[in-house]
Amino acid sequence: MKLASLKEGGRDGTLIVVDRELKHAVHAGGIAPTLQKAIEDWATIGPRLRDLAEKLNEGKVPGSFELDPTALAAPLPRAYQWADGSAYVVHVELVRKARGVEMPPSFWTDPLMYQGGSDSFVGANDEIELADEAWGIDFEGEIAVITDDVPMGISAEAARKHIKLVTILNDVSLRNVIVGELAKGFGFFHGKPATAFAPVAVTPGELGDAWDGAKLNLPLISTFNGKEFGHPNAATDLTFDFGQLIAHAAKTRYLEAGTVVGSGTVANRDPAAGCSCIAERRVRETIDTGKPTTPFMKFGDRVRIEMFGHDGQSIFGAIDQKVVKYDPPG
Amino acid sequence: MKLASLKEGGRDGTLIVVDRELKHAVHAGGIAPTLQKAIEDWATIGPRLRDLAEKLNEGKVPGSFELDPTALAAPLPRAYQWADGSAYVVHVELVRKARGVEMPPSFWTDPLMYQGGSDSFVGANDEIELADEAWGIDFEGEIAVITDDVPMGISAEAARKHIKLVTILNDVSLRNVIVGELAKGFGFFHGKPATAFAPVAVTPGELGDAWDGAKLNLPLISTFNGKEFGHPNAATDLTFDFGQLIAHAAKTRYLEAGTVVGSGTVANRDPAAGCSCIAERRVRETIDTGKPTTPFMKFGDRVRIEMFGHDGQSIFGAIDQKVVKYDPPG
Repeated sequence: MKLASLKEGGRDGTLIVVDRELKHAVHAGGIAPTLQKAIEDWATIGPRLRDLAEKLNEGKVPGSFELDPTALAAPLPRAYQWADGSAYVVHVELVRKARGVEMPPSFWTDPLMYQGGSDSFVGANDEIELADEAWGIDFEGEIAVITDDVPMGISAEAARKHIKLVTILNDVSLRNVIVGELAKGFGFFHGKPATAFAPVAVTPGELGDAWDGAKLNLPLISTFNGKEFGHPNAATDLTFDFGQLIAHAAKTRYLEAGTVVGSGTVANRDPAAGCSCIAERRVRETIDTGKPTTPFMKFGDRVRIEMFGHDGQSIFGAIDQKVVKYDPPG
Repeated sequence: MKLASLKEGGRDGTLIVVDRELKHAVHAGGIAPTLQKAIEDWATIGPRLRDLAEKLNEGKVPGSFELDPTALAAPLPRAYQWADGSAYVVHVELVRKARGVEMPPSFWTDPLMYQGGSDSFVGANDEIELADEAWGIDFEGEIAVITDDVPMGISAEAARKHIKLVTILNDVSLRNVIVGELAKGFGFFHGKPATAFAPVAVTPGELGDAWDGAKLNLPLISTFNGKEFGHPNAATDLTFDFGQLIAHAAKTRYLEAGTVVGSGTVANRDPAAGCSCIAERRVRETIDTGKPTTPFMKFGDRVRIEMFGHDGQSIFGAIDQKVVKYDPPG
């Protein structure tokens, strides 16, 4: 089952069910008004949405309409929690290597995770509005899961069953802001502006054998200004799977239904796989040639992030965003 | 006007209006079902709630009932954003001094702020449930404001008018977890479990001349196991006011209505004012005598945080919490 939110109908959008080919959709408001409401009562709502999705995929639903991806908000237009890991430790190791800094060995066993801003996610085709190119604008292609209610102190194994939906995202990052911000010691704030999500979130069942219960065994394709930038496989070199990431997030707290947990930038050790963010490519350039040559994003630049099934079908639809200049109020 | 949320009626509770003396309340569901909904449409909803509050304070509302503080959730039982500053830089300076580390001079001009978990706030009388005393359990008494929608890049002066409500909170902190966590470089996650809020949030107008538009000129009283722990004035030694903190939070993003912005631990330079957290007292003990003597909280310990007006009336009601042992699922 694939779910999305139309921008209409309020701050949380309007829940729709989307067909497997991302061509048609149908309003699901009779079942649950919003995705947040659906996930809060998934045991009851989930099966009813699944029935509707089956009928839609069979072409048997009156009132279905052609899907316009630009009419979509993020599947959760806003969320109560966004916990983003950094689960491809090979990426962290590379970044450190370029800086000439040793990575603590504990990074291989204790996940890195930061609390992200979740109050205003942006849609897959929304512009990336920022005031200053000098901030070092970058994209980050990631995988995320959306959970139902998770008890505090849960095990990684038990955490798996709380994964209700899977999607991909662009964790927009301001590299030149992050340097100074992390030095202050309190983590990211300005350096992580609004995060963008794919048009649809899907149930794990939709992923077939590419999903093993805690990771997604398919390449994530990033395209920068029309040229392929990377296609790392999201299951390769993944140090912590989503069971482990959820358990990590829940160590000292409950996670409310609708919590979004991210993987961090998808990265493979093999340089032939390319990168899911400009920062990593610059690190690889620095290691290879002594200095970075790919600049960060400028106003007008465009990034596309997408994932395809073995049948060639786009699973989540494409994140396709242009960076534009934002003028602050006077 | 004073607003609160009953625990009944769903995850966001049920909005009630509370009288000035915190003795009686009335359901406000006919105006807005939840505080989140009210703040999203404050220009319309705010005046209607104010009318109801006036009638309640005059004792003229049918259906009013006696207020039971233990029936209250946090005013926002969950929020889309919790951005906590560290605006009493004197506190940060003290902590650094005890560690023998210089504080960067930029800390006096560039606010520290972290993204907090906002998906499950706890009520003023709820227990602090944690699995391990060895985590170094501490309270932090703070002031917070709740905003409506704030444009990205707003000025500190313009930000003031987005402050719709003011309250106090207990930013529960795990000191022995934070040390290792901050060393990892991504800020707080495990070290900041669920935050507790006072029974009510109030409009700035309720604060009279103690509120100057961006700060609250009254002492915050913390009591630990029945003994006064501190009474620092929240306007004294405040380096960044709430206009500045909101503008800081909005530098690279919009803030959605219902965003909670915190001051950080209220602290005064004058040792006679005492402290709003155990960590600061331990720092002062270390500076004075070479080692800390006050231990962190144990299971069964109790903290009370409250603020009184010039007339002796409790403004927000008391946060009064006991630490209890949590047993994770098997």
